[in-house]
Amino acid sequence: MGRDTGRAPALELLLGPGSAGPLHRQIAAQLRRAVLERRLAPGTPLPSSRLLARELGCARGTVLAAFEELAGEGYVTAVPGSGTAVASDLPDDALTASMAPAGRRAAAPAAPRLSRRAASVLAVPPQPGTAHGPRPEAFALGRPAVDAFPFPLWARLLEAEWHRPARDAAASPHPFGHPALRRAIAAHLGAARGFSCTAEELVVTSGIRQSMGLLARLLLEPGEPAYVEEPGFAGARNALEAAGAALIPVPLDAAGFSPERAEALAPGARLAVVTPAHHYPLGTVMPLPRRLALLAWAERAGGWVAEDDYDGEYRYGGRPLAPLRALDRAGRVAYLGSFSKLLFPALRLSYLVLPAALVDPAAQLLAAGGPAEASLLGQGALARFVADGHFAAHLRRTRRLYAERQEALVAAARRHLAGLLDVLPDAGGMHLVGRPHADLAARGFDDRAASAAAACAGVTVSPLSAAYIGRPAAHGLLLGYAATAPEAIEAAAERLRSALELQL
Amino acid sequence: MGRDTGRAPALELLLGPGSAGPLHRQIAAQLRRAVLERRLAPGTPLPSSRLLARELGCARGTVLAAFEELAGEGYVTAVPGSGTAVASDLPDDALTASMAPAGRRAAAPAAPRLSRRAASVLAVPPQPGTAHGPRPEAFALGRPAVDAFPFPLWARLLEAEWHRPARDAAASPHPFGHPALRRAIAAHLGAARGFSCTAEELVVTSGIRQSMGLLARLLLEPGEPAYVEEPGFAGARNALEAAGAALIPVPLDAAGFSPERAEALAPGARLAVVTPAHHYPLGTVMPLPRRLALLAWAERAGGWVAEDDYDGEYRYGGRPLAPLRALDRAGRVAYLGSFSKLLFPALRLSYLVLPAALVDPAAQLLAAGGPAEASLLGQGALARFVADGHFAAHLRRTRRLYAERQEALVAAARRHLAGLLDVLPDAGGMHLVGRPHADLAARGFDDRAASAAAACAGVTVSPLSAAYIGRPAAHGLLLGYAATAPEAIEAAAERLRSALELQL
Repeated sequence: MGRDTGRAPALELLLGPGSAGPLHRQIAAQLRRAVLERRLAPGTPLPSSRLLARELGCARGTVLAAFEELAGEGYVTAVPGSGTAVASDLPDDALTASMAPAGRRAAAPAAPRLSRRAASVLAVPPQPGTAHGPRPEAFALGRPAVDAFPFPLWARLLEAEWHRPARDAAASPHPFGHPALRRAIAAHLGAARGFSCTAEELVVTSGIRQSMGLLARLLLEPGEPAYVEEPGFAGARNALEAAGAALIPVPLDAAGFSPERAEALAPGARLAVVTPAHHYPLGTVMPLPRRLALLAWAERAGGWVAEDDYDGEYRYGGRPLAPLRALDRAGRVAYLGSFSKLLFPALRLSYLVLPAALVDPAAQLLAAGGPAEASLLGQGALARFVADGHFAAHLRRTRRLYAERQEALVAAARRHLAGLLDVLPDAGGMHLVGRPHADLAARGFDDRAASAAAACAGVTVSPLSAAYIGRPAAHGLLLGYAATAPEAIEAAAERLRSALELQL
Repeated sequence: MGRDTGRAPALELLLGPGSAGPLHRQIAAQLRRAVLERRLAPGTPLPSSRLLARELGCARGTVLAAFEELAGEGYVTAVPGSGTAVASDLPDDALTASMAPAGRRAAAPAAPRLSRRAASVLAVPPQPGTAHGPRPEAFALGRPAVDAFPFPLWARLLEAEWHRPARDAAASPHPFGHPALRRAIAAHLGAARGFSCTAEELVVTSGIRQSMGLLARLLLEPGEPAYVEEPGFAGARNALEAAGAALIPVPLDAAGFSPERAEALAPGARLAVVTPAHHYPLGTVMPLPRRLALLAWAERAGGWVAEDDYDGEYRYGGRPLAPLRALDRAGRVAYLGSFSKLLFPALRLSYLVLPAALVDPAAQLLAAGGPAEASLLGQGALARFVADGHFAAHLRRTRRLYAERQEALVAAARRHLAGLLDVLPDAGGMHLVGRPHADLAARGFDDRAASAAAACAGVTVSPLSAAYIGRPAAHGLLLGYAATAPEAIEAAAERLRSALELQL
């Protein structure tokens, strides 16, 4: 009889009121562990339920319940005529190889083999200006003045939205996002950006990257080329590459992106991604003739234009040019906007105004792949925020604030960075480009080295050269100012001076 | 002198207190429109500022400001010695082609050329059970009991979180998500799913699709194979395909996914995606020997396992088997969970527990591509919801509720669908599989036709055959019950009867 073997001291079943859970669970858990740790080998018969119950001082039904549970899981099997045994089809090798007592998990392999695309991203050192630091510093990029945002109002809107949500809002989201938000954005675009679109054309997304990815999946075969601005915005580029596009960097001239030059570089691309309102990162505004030429290209070539209205809301002088979307008669322009950069980054809500012909395909594509990925949590509150005028008011407030901060940065640069970095004002945006002064340039200014030196001095700046895919045509430092108060700008410019003097 | 031409009646400048905006903006806007609509041809001289000011009854400076604005935009140019003219480098063709007065936007092209991957998705008719209908009906899939969720509590948590958010929470999210939420999930997994992980290994995502996409981008070259269960979950498959994976459907046997069979089909794949707790859609629980064999495969072959713990929280009898992650000694298992399906779909928060070796690469990949896409809006509130025990309480409540609803469905099927559809109970999950009764099967039951007939009768069911990539091995109807009260289940079963009788 193997029964005594089965009751070897290794079993150590300990039950008691101090332990958690019902008795049969405790019994099953301890037997399970004994099997997994090989204290009970495959095929070992277990004590009879009667014997075990007597030993543990519990009802026999309790032990039978534990056996049943373990049998259901495959740890034990009923042996006709002789009770219950540890399952014999537990592969012994696998058990030894895969099991270890708690606390003895093997150390992870040091370097897993990653995909080439992951490895290529990992080979690029992170840009200091875009790091997810614990708190924003001068002069990190893409950060709005979060402290200017009316959070108490926002919290009230959220509470009101979720206290008793419409069943549909919580349960069955439209793949394009919250209908009220889409209506509110369409109305805002009509008033602020001068073109009319309908809520039906508008997809709420989690960011420019998701917007761009959706477009690319709709329009491009894997490996098909797409024109991007050189230099340009890494976020959009990464999304295009993730969707399989082959990027064709088109060097900017004084008027921005040139469709002629693009076609000369790679004829036959079907998507051009541009930032006409305020080029990222150089700030160029695409003049009207260029806009019209780009639209003519799209119509002639059957191409599509993704207009990333980067910084379109922040113009400090003059009236912004009409967006491409407003000039587009052939329906070839997708317009991309974002709230995260205008309100606060954690919001992660953006939108994409689709060309009319892509509305139905996009809806089907999103529906087939499940719901779109933008969270609906904030969409109802944001709809009220926009529709009730708080969004426009916030833009007015921050437009004044950022204009002041830009002035403060230009003044601070004049005071502290003269002879090192030339920082010229810009009619729009949330950052300025600092160009190396002649002295610095003559010594072969390296913006990555300068950024690293600045980081050591406690100042976050971003190298312009990192915005190039190919050989950088220029070095410089990108200085975000929107999130930084004038006094902090002043102090950071002083610290930046010491870092740049090291480069001389 | 062309001045009179420039002042042709087409100009129709109308200024007045009733119009919006400052005078110079109004003047610029109307001149801009005249240029765009070709009422002012390229090269046309404009009236002098003095003349125009007199005519409009405004200060000359106002007109000059308008001219300056238009010049900055490229619509007009200063002609030395003779005032201002419409820019002559506005490409005439582009203007005619691209401009139309408001309201005359050309109709969109009927059928844009889409990418093959988009076209292939669009060619598949939408599955009725997954449609984003206006309200959940019996027996839609993947829908929790939204009315059982404590929304007033949730609204209070949101309000508290956002009334005065930590500056860091709003401004500078960690690419893996809210730290407190990651800690709370790690603690929950330890208590509820029996494995320990740290917050550092845990990425908050917007859904299973984003989790799967991140893994695929990290591990797979485009075109590299990945094993998936056949039948299986379309959401995970779509995400893998979007990331470029070549799917190898591995037909399930009675014990679920078989690594042996997978290797026989396509040796050398490096990722296997499985639902061991409760297979989607068949409900199979992967027994322990199979689990160990799968882990042994991963270790031997240098492969990775994505464990989608589908329905892992909903077991109505017995104790769930230990997840693969709990058995994984070699660090080859990524564990995927979701809150959207447990709480409410609009939440769109899921998580991914990374194998230790992939933590740093994932962090770099996400940081390089910008922040992860999961919204941070609900993450703080959800952290409190989980940490304060509301999540566990909600799971206990809904576990009871869903067990009752499953019983109601089985009973209703027995009453109304006998001889048509065999609906057997399941120890877990949120849906049951209805198999055609012998009579129906003998007549060549087609589950898509039956689903369409059911939809006409006001019942949403999902065809089992749609869960297959290859030729379906079985037809059947998937019946979600979690979101439907017993009375509605009863009524829907009656309506389903009439739809199925049409198939006889």
